[in-house]
Amino acid sequence: MDCEVSDLPSGPLDVYRKRASFSWKDMRLFIDGEDILAFKQHVFRTLENDPLFARQPGEDVPLEKMRELTFLRVKQLFRYNFLTKEEMMADPWKTVVLNDCLGMYDWAVNSKFFLNIGMFGATVANSGSSRHNKHVENTGDMTTFGCFALTELSHGSNTRAMRTTATYDPSTQEFVINSPDFEAAKFWVGNLGKTATHAVVYAQLYTPDQVCHGLHSFVVPVRDPKTLLALPGVMVGDMGKKLGLNGLDNGFALFHNVRIPREKLLNRTGDVTPDGRYVTPFKDPNKHFGATLGALSGGRISITRMALVNLKLALTVAIRFSATRRQFGPKDSEIPVLEYQLQQWRLIPYLAAAYALEHFTKSIFMNFVEFQIGQMMRDNSDRQAEMGREIHAIGCSSKPLGSWTAQRGIQECREACGGHGYLAMNRLGDLRDDNDPNCTYEGDNNVLLQQTSNYLLSCLQTKHGDELRIESPLHTVDFLEDFQKILKSNFTATTVEECLDSAVPVAAYQWLVCFLLEESQRKLEQQRVLSKDEFEARNNSQVYYCRSLAIAYIEHNCLQRFHELTLDQDTPAGVRPVLSRLCALYGLWSLSNHMSTLYQGHYFSGRKPAELVQTAILTLCSQLKDDAVALVDVFSPTDFMLNSPIGRADGQLYKNLWSTVMQGSQVVERPAWWKEFCVDKPVVGSLRPKL
Amino acid sequence: MDCEVSDLPSGPLDVYRKRASFSWKDMRLFIDGEDILAFKQHVFRTLENDPLFARQPGEDVPLEKMRELTFLRVKQLFRYNFLTKEEMMADPWKTVVLNDCLGMYDWAVNSKFFLNIGMFGATVANSGSSRHNKHVENTGDMTTFGCFALTELSHGSNTRAMRTTATYDPSTQEFVINSPDFEAAKFWVGNLGKTATHAVVYAQLYTPDQVCHGLHSFVVPVRDPKTLLALPGVMVGDMGKKLGLNGLDNGFALFHNVRIPREKLLNRTGDVTPDGRYVTPFKDPNKHFGATLGALSGGRISITRMALVNLKLALTVAIRFSATRRQFGPKDSEIPVLEYQLQQWRLIPYLAAAYALEHFTKSIFMNFVEFQIGQMMRDNSDRQAEMGREIHAIGCSSKPLGSWTAQRGIQECREACGGHGYLAMNRLGDLRDDNDPNCTYEGDNNVLLQQTSNYLLSCLQTKHGDELRIESPLHTVDFLEDFQKILKSNFTATTVEECLDSAVPVAAYQWLVCFLLEESQRKLEQQRVLSKDEFEARNNSQVYYCRSLAIAYIEHNCLQRFHELTLDQDTPAGVRPVLSRLCALYGLWSLSNHMSTLYQGHYFSGRKPAELVQTAILTLCSQLKDDAVALVDVFSPTDFMLNSPIGRADGQLYKNLWSTVMQGSQVVERPAWWKEFCVDKPVVGSLRPKL
Repeated sequence: MDCEVSDLPSGPLDVYRKRASFSWKDMRLFIDGEDILAFKQHVFRTLENDPLFARQPGEDVPLEKMRELTFLRVKQLFRYNFLTKEEMMADPWKTVVLNDCLGMYDWAVNSKFFLNIGMFGATVANSGSSRHNKHVENTGDMTTFGCFALTELSHGSNTRAMRTTATYDPSTQEFVINSPDFEAAKFWVGNLGKTATHAVVYAQLYTPDQVCHGLHSFVVPVRDPKTLLALPGVMVGDMGKKLGLNGLDNGFALFHNVRIPREKLLNRTGDVTPDGRYVTPFKDPNKHFGATLGALSGGRISITRMALVNLKLALTVAIRFSATRRQFGPKDSEIPVLEYQLQQWRLIPYLAAAYALEHFTKSIFMNFVEFQIGQMMRDNSDRQAEMGREIHAIGCSSKPLGSWTAQRGIQECREACGGHGYLAMNRLGDLRDDNDPNCTYEGDNNVLLQQTSNYLLSCLQTKHGDELRIESPLHTVDFLEDFQKILKSNFTATTVEECLDSAVPVAAYQWLVCFLLEESQRKLEQQRVLSKDEFEARNNSQVYYCRSLAIAYIEHNCLQRFHELTLDQDTPAGVRPVLSRLCALYGLWSLSNHMSTLYQGHYFSGRKPAELVQTAILTLCSQLKDDAVALVDVFSPTDFMLNSPIGRADGQLYKNLWSTVMQGSQVVERPAWWKEFCVDKPVVGSLRPKL
Repeated sequence: MDCEVSDLPSGPLDVYRKRASFSWKDMRLFIDGEDILAFKQHVFRTLENDPLFARQPGEDVPLEKMRELTFLRVKQLFRYNFLTKEEMMADPWKTVVLNDCLGMYDWAVNSKFFLNIGMFGATVANSGSSRHNKHVENTGDMTTFGCFALTELSHGSNTRAMRTTATYDPSTQEFVINSPDFEAAKFWVGNLGKTATHAVVYAQLYTPDQVCHGLHSFVVPVRDPKTLLALPGVMVGDMGKKLGLNGLDNGFALFHNVRIPREKLLNRTGDVTPDGRYVTPFKDPNKHFGATLGALSGGRISITRMALVNLKLALTVAIRFSATRRQFGPKDSEIPVLEYQLQQWRLIPYLAAAYALEHFTKSIFMNFVEFQIGQMMRDNSDRQAEMGREIHAIGCSSKPLGSWTAQRGIQECREACGGHGYLAMNRLGDLRDDNDPNCTYEGDNNVLLQQTSNYLLSCLQTKHGDELRIESPLHTVDFLEDFQKILKSNFTATTVEECLDSAVPVAAYQWLVCFLLEESQRKLEQQRVLSKDEFEARNNSQVYYCRSLAIAYIEHNCLQRFHELTLDQDTPAGVRPVLSRLCALYGLWSLSNHMSTLYQGHYFSGRKPAELVQTAILTLCSQLKDDAVALVDVFSPTDFMLNSPIGRADGQLYKNLWSTVMQGSQVVERPAWWKEFCVDKPVVGSLRPKL
């Protein structure tokens, strides 16, 4: 494979490219490394060279056609087999990179592919036992097609309230799967709409003695793999159009006394003997719980990364547009809109956020891999369980951080490109729509944040309780050890220059987390007195307290990791200055959303601090505007992958836009229904009621 | 016409409806009045009873079909002729109401209808003279179909930089229209894609002596009304798919030596004599400028209202969903998600904003009508010109306020409905997508805000200059008269109860506007010293200064008007308490975005003020949650118009959702391409490069 970074085409963007303070190729190599770069290029070129993946920017594809095309593309991915299982094991990061690449092309293709192999296959492998191996193998070569069926029509976040039942019948040694009514239909299941033959179904397990043993998962065949017709007792179908991801067939299923063999229970955490007794290998449910929490984090950490990919694509489009779109200027000249303070302030902080999240998503993924290895090694230590809880706290807040930053960033990019950003062909709409579910699935962002604040409150509890040291396996809360000291600190910078150092926002964030933690604790205690139960007390401590705490914690952690990267001796000297500026900007800009709290708790006082932070933000935006084009060049995929005329690397904004418009279908043709205008003129008021 | 407000169907929403503190019917009557209510019901029923307007929630309609359907529906509107010209003149508010109603159905239908009659017709009528009457008449009965062509591919905001030319040729007494190149193609023109036969084209007017007289408008025939084929020299076509409004055919046009008679120049502001001399009736260009500015405001004021309509529809969906969706609860029960503090805080402030904007959009429309009457009366007074400037300042900031509030509110509604909010059938996606251009057209929001801050700075200038009283025709800046005194004030409330009075945020906003005005002035002066010209000085004073100033000004004005309504003796006692709570909530919630500035300028000091404001916001949300369902009942249209299963008035969330899913096309059918799965299995890795 060829790992050389090729030059970008010359054109109107050259002006900015020449002004860049660093080499974009060096940065790309630093971030990805040769091996990953070569792998990405290979995926990009393969898709570009395959006519099945050809597409026209902004084309109008009917829903059924999108589902078909997506399926055919997924099938082709089996043939390309970009990563073998062995390669995934050898370098787990490559799976993320493949996910990135396929997502850049189309998240529906990526989801359809990974829901079958990753979600269905991995769940069966991890929750089942050797007797389920065949199911995993069958998905690996598309003999069958899998999906993951947890959510029901009337329950999402509250997973324990799922109502599908699996009742064991010892007379035939079968489980009988039932949906009590349509409100308990499995709903939102990706792949279930059109192609799934098998589903991992979560159901309440009942033994013959009528005892419910809680939610368990089962492999349930839903369609005949030879005909794709629904199996008896299964009503399965497609949910229809969504705001985005329309290549993916989300579906529903209702089960009416569907019988499956006893062995279809995924039996790692509990099993039923042939005569109908429930048995479980777990003795300490608490440790098991910590491990389970950790395992769920994989999805959320991966979503954080998916959101980042969307943000990077949107920024590539908006920054290249802003560097080539000229509007107004001194006297009669016109200047690129990127020269305006306002445009810089709208876009460049998101660019900084993308760099912060780039390092953050990689770094937390490595944490997750460490945790996963422990799981595979059957590490039963306290540290492993503790790591599970910490990873859970990270995943539950990193997903909101990533998905909301992307959501807002893409919207800002759309608006920053004006009308042209509203044209479907420029892809900002698709990016926004395809990013949107990241805020919702694997847990609603606002609901998830409560998990993180609960974790933080429990850390404080531990500390208050028995004077233990606060030290977590991944060190995200270690600074709480200095809780009291940090709370006494305040903002000491007195010049803008000082504020250009990311140590300033890092320190402010440490104070902020400590302050919000103390306040949340206080609020919770107050509410415990006022409320009728713990449930109510927790609910009434969310807004302005626990929720803000969880957000501040994860922003701090993201900033902290980036800050460390800029100080790391392994970070090449050539890219360190620009990374430092991005880090400071990200920190200050995120912090500026909390300024009122900083004043409230007296970390800030007087007019100066807010002014310094604001001036520093604008200074950094202005310092970075000449680097902005090079900074998006670093993470932009090929033009084929980006699929946005106004975002192409040659910067020929209008030529690309115009030629794409002209290539559309029925562009200059008279509409088929022209006679509706020319003949049969309406009589004005002919249908107006006569009084 | 029947003006009785009918009851809503009984169901799961009854619980909340019974808890409401006011009668929703009284509120509806108070807001709309009997006549408007009857008119709305008439429009709603007419569309519902006409099969041409039938539709299925979430259906997948191809682009070309959407354009056709939209055209046919517009044609039907001519037959219904809901408002005659006379009726529009007699009650201009009814035009807004019709706009509301059609927009609730589909903004594309509304736009296509009003762009022809309102935008093309009105521009020709207002900018032309009696010789153009025929053009206006022809659009009125669809003999021809009009559009408004200003924007070009490479120019939007900078209208003066348009490059299309109209050169007068005295030998034939014609203007020759030319697009110098494709970058000057007219672009984004609504109706031009498929059906326009005539366009108002803005072009630089050149007399035979090569002198350019600036931008003028011309009626240019583009398609033959008998065939809908493009006329010689005109290349006209459809721009393709957009993020939303896909029923509307936005188009482009390139002109190659298109000759039109001299009389096609819309000659109110300037004309060319047969022998080629340029003549203009205007002597005082400044007064003319003020009037022109005012005239442009109609569009922006109307967009503010359009955005509000979208917000109201989204809130209806999200509040009804939240009142019927149950998830978690104390012990084993489950409570409606509307009972959660977090869900209340996410949605109810937007409900308050909708009520604030309801009164605001009506009130500024009445201001605009007053101004328009002056124009029609040819009022040449200073007051009229001054009113033009003030209306311009209002329109340039009310559009950003309305469109951004709706944009964020709809997104919050989407997320608050979780996965079900992501289903196309529930309409939140369409609302978001159709609202999005409100942020962009008739001026990018961020660019427009500069017009407002310029106006405010000039008011201060006047005051500083010659000690004149600050008193504007619409009184939006009158409080600046007490500028110095207000700046010395600070936050005096000491209890949450005090803060529940909207006078508290009103006072805080007055201080905020004064403070930001003074700071912006200071910043601008500082920048004038540092920058190389006024252009740069202005640009560098936007972020945190002029931009924030314009936003604070319009939020203050919106709040102020609502505040006055709650004090008005004509506001019925039965609805006043709930309106007062909404007003206080809107004020405090908007204000909470500026708390850092309040601290910065010492209006706030210490921990207390922010805490009071936050507690008051949560108190009001909790007080209003039992009114929320009734509050959306007030402004919700019929179920047919709302077209969202989870938002129906009967509150049968799951029944409606499920039955709509089942009515979709090809829901449980096996896909046509099933053999692609069942036969022709991929050989894993068969296309993987062999090393």
